[in-house]
Order: sequence, then C-alpha cells, then structure tokens
Amino acid sequence: MPEEYQLKVIGWIESDLTQVEKAPPQGAGSGQEAWLILEPQYAEGLDGIQVGDHLLVLTWLHLAERWPLKLPPHGNHQMPARGVFGTRSPHRPNPIGVHLVEVLAVEGNRLRLCGMEAVDGTPVVDIKCVLH
Amino acid sequence: MPEEYQLKVIGWIESDLTQVEKAPPQGAGSGQEAWLILEPQYAEGLDGIQVGDHLLVLTWLHLAERWPLKLPPHGNHQMPARGVFGTRSPHRPNPIGVHLVEVLAVEGNRLRLCGMEAVDGTPVVDIKCVLH
Repeated sequence: MPEEYQLKVIGWIESDLTQVEKAPPQGAGSGQEAWLILEPQYAEGLDGIQVGDHLLVLTWLHLAERWPLKLPPHGNHQMPARGVFGTRSPHRPNPIGVHLVEVLAVEGNRLRLCGMEAVDGTPVVDIKCVLH
Repeated sequence: MPEEYQLKVIGWIESDLTQVEKAPPQGAGSGQEAWLILEPQYAEGLDGIQVGDHLLVLTWLHLAERWPLKLPPHGNHQMPARGVFGTRSPHRPNPIGVHLVEVLAVEGNRLRLCGMEAVDGTPVVDIKCVLH
C-alpha cells in the first residue's frame, strides 16, 4: 500500500476571515459567509448544485501544524492532554477540514456559502452532497 | 499556493467487505462493522476515545477513479448526468470518503467501528470527533 497520496487543490476560499485566531471552531454553525472559487477545469463538477443545498466542503487547513498527537482541550493547558483523533483541532497528521455549509448563490465556478469557517486563501480539496 | 499536498496514510480498514460493488453508499447507516487499524506511530492520537463515541473517519477510496466530473445519478444512465460535487460518488478528483461511525471497542491501536462502509484494505487518512 502506498504511504502517501497526492491531494489536488481544486479551488480555494475567499473570505473576510483573515486571522486563524478569529476562525470559529469547525462545526460551530457560526453563519460565517464566504466564497468558494473552483479552479475553472473543475467547474463542470458543480452542475446541478442549487441555492439551499447543503454540502460538505473539505479543505486543506494549510496554516495548521501536522503535529502533535496529543493536545490539551481547547488549548487549555490546565486540562490533561488528549489524543488528537478525539478532537476537532486543525493540527493533525493530515489537516483536512470538514465544513457543513449551505449554498446561498451559484455563479459559474463560484459558490457563496453560509457556515464556511476557514480563513481567506484556504485550499479546497472536495465537495460532497449531504445525505439526510 | 501549492497545487498538491501530500496525504499520509495513518492506518487502514480491516473488513469482511471485500467487493466494492457490495459496499453500501456512504452515509447509508448500514451498521457495517469493521476494524480500523492505526499505524503504531499514530496510536497516541487515539488517547481518550471511548466506546460509544461518534467519530468521522476520513478514508482514501483507493479503488475509485479520479474522474469524470459529471455522472448519472446512482449509475442510472437513463437519467441526466450531474456534477460530481453534488453527489456522494466515490469517483472524484480527490476520492476522500467521509464515514460517520460509532466506536464499539478500543484495543490499543485498533478501533472496532459500526457504520464503517469501506472495503477491506481502504487507507485511513484522518479521524475526528463529531460535534453535537
């Protein structure tokens, strides 16, 4: 089995959120709005996506570290450290962000999204529909 | 911005499910049980995970194709093709699987999971807690 795979950047986030310290925790349902700009060669893959759709957007949290394996909850060093795989910390061996968003607008290769809690310039690596 | 990132394989799935044709659709809540075996160097990252926890497991769907960008829904060629990013098809530019699972047992670097709908040998690339 290969030990690594090549993840292609398919687009990026354009957001007023520029400081990672101000990014709400993943899944917090902050209502943060942002644009997802798809690289033009992938635009066809958006066909059929409509306003009101709920999507999972997968990002590469490019500002995150790829360690440590244990960390204190919510950065509170008074609490005992726990394993990263039981947390939502962005710092992890593969810093993939999973964002549950709602589509507010579709304009060619651009999606306006609600709930997109990633800083400006964050690479996008996948988009999926949400199953109910 | 880099056009690609290196995704590290952190573990793999050990399952009775060996044929991709028999794998239930992602998120179908099939109750499929499987083991997740973490590479020993990442085992510390499981610290604190308990029986009954709900986790998101991210896999690399290694048997998938990385194209096309449009495909007929559920493989039904009588239906009009739609963009892959509005579907859960495993075939996509970055074939990352997102699996919502429940922990049935924790044994060192191994987790017994319910709802793990990936074939035997599927690489694992991330594990996160589920926020409620």
